[in-house]
Amino acid sequence: MSKKSKAVVLLSGGLDSTTVLAMARAQDYDLYALSFRYGQRHLVELESAKKVAEQMSVTEHVIAEIDLRLFGGSALTAEIEVPKHDSVADLSSGIPVTYVPARNTIFLSFALAWAEVLGASDIFIGVNALDYSGYPDCRPEYIEAFERMSDLATKAGVEGHQKLKIHTPLIEMTKAQIVQQGLALGVDYALTSSCYAPDEKGYPCGACDSCLLRAKGFAETGITDPLLTSESSSL
Amino acid sequence: MSKKSKAVVLLSGGLDSTTVLAMARAQDYDLYALSFRYGQRHLVELESAKKVAEQMSVTEHVIAEIDLRLFGGSALTAEIEVPKHDSVADLSSGIPVTYVPARNTIFLSFALAWAEVLGASDIFIGVNALDYSGYPDCRPEYIEAFERMSDLATKAGVEGHQKLKIHTPLIEMTKAQIVQQGLALGVDYALTSSCYAPDEKGYPCGACDSCLLRAKGFAETGITDPLLTSESSSL
Repeated sequence: MSKKSKAVVLLSGGLDSTTVLAMARAQDYDLYALSFRYGQRHLVELESAKKVAEQMSVTEHVIAEIDLRLFGGSALTAEIEVPKHDSVADLSSGIPVTYVPARNTIFLSFALAWAEVLGASDIFIGVNALDYSGYPDCRPEYIEAFERMSDLATKAGVEGHQKLKIHTPLIEMTKAQIVQQGLALGVDYALTSSCYAPDEKGYPCGACDSCLLRAKGFAETGITDPLLTSESSSL
Repeated sequence: MSKKSKAVVLLSGGLDSTTVLAMARAQDYDLYALSFRYGQRHLVELESAKKVAEQMSVTEHVIAEIDLRLFGGSALTAEIEVPKHDSVADLSSGIPVTYVPARNTIFLSFALAWAEVLGASDIFIGVNALDYSGYPDCRPEYIEAFERMSDLATKAGVEGHQKLKIHTPLIEMTKAQIVQQGLALGVDYALTSSCYAPDEKGYPCGACDSCLLRAKGFAETGITDPLLTSESSSL
């Protein structure tokens, strides 16, 4: 165990980050999963993150408490309505109201802090530039700029023994490709949670951007989403 | 008030950040002060931050709760002893154990989030490359890399109506110059707090790096530190 390279993996408990965790595991990293309680509407995803972390046998799972509601400004944390649509074709272009200001920058900053303490040079994040083209902090040029900044930010970077690599294995994948990759690696998607506006019991709304993209991914692979099956059976 | 440009000012309650706040005020910005409760040993500095923010008439003062102790790794947050010295000549070179991994990156990320929500393009931070040459995230090249990353990170940056400027007015100043600047702007340094390891009543130890640098700054200006005067009188 101690001879493996350590990696910090950002884990929301959703489909994308769970697939990324499985990909890091397949590359034989010693896994340190990092989740955030950031005032999101949907705490069910943290329950998913815990189950996923346990099932994937991570070495340590930290849930950091940060309150982004202090600043407002997003449908995911503030009193702005999460938009719902009839189909994926209705998804609006441009930057969606579910964009959380500087969220990935904050998340990656925490990952950087933990990576430095662990002596890790690898961070994994499930950003995707295709399905979420509206989020500026999901683009390759942003990730590269964060890496450059990181190497100037840390003691380890300055002393030259830690050149940070931010792995974004999903960045150019379609949702269907992500699902196929995860299934090939044995991911149990029934543990994951994607909805931006689940009901009180944590069931997905089926109409927000994230639900629609997830449904499209499963539809294109010709596989039924196990999350929906398990919910149907428990309803 | 509404016609002024808004600026987010990182405010620890110490000598440097208080001086920076006074400098931003002198430039007629509408002031938004941001402090952090990050598991630091010395919560007295947050009390100082509150007093300073009130005295400087900031529009809003937010104290964000983040727990950097989760990751360990610094004498300021973990169970590592804060080093003490007899004089400033004894300060060790290199990166001190009081360095908190990625701290300024995390602080600036929060400032970036708030700036975006406020529609502000200006962030002020009291980093200093002379007295604190050991901290990698206090150097100009780090600050520039953060600015470049920020313009790719945010909706406002991508849409082109917010080009972030991180102001570091102290970066090349000596502690004595900082004190002189602050006094010229009417700063009440009796409200500030600099010690890394104050006693239970919040009195400075007089022997940590931060106390020694502060003492040197006041000694070089030929002025008695009002913080010490007020303490002597209350002891």
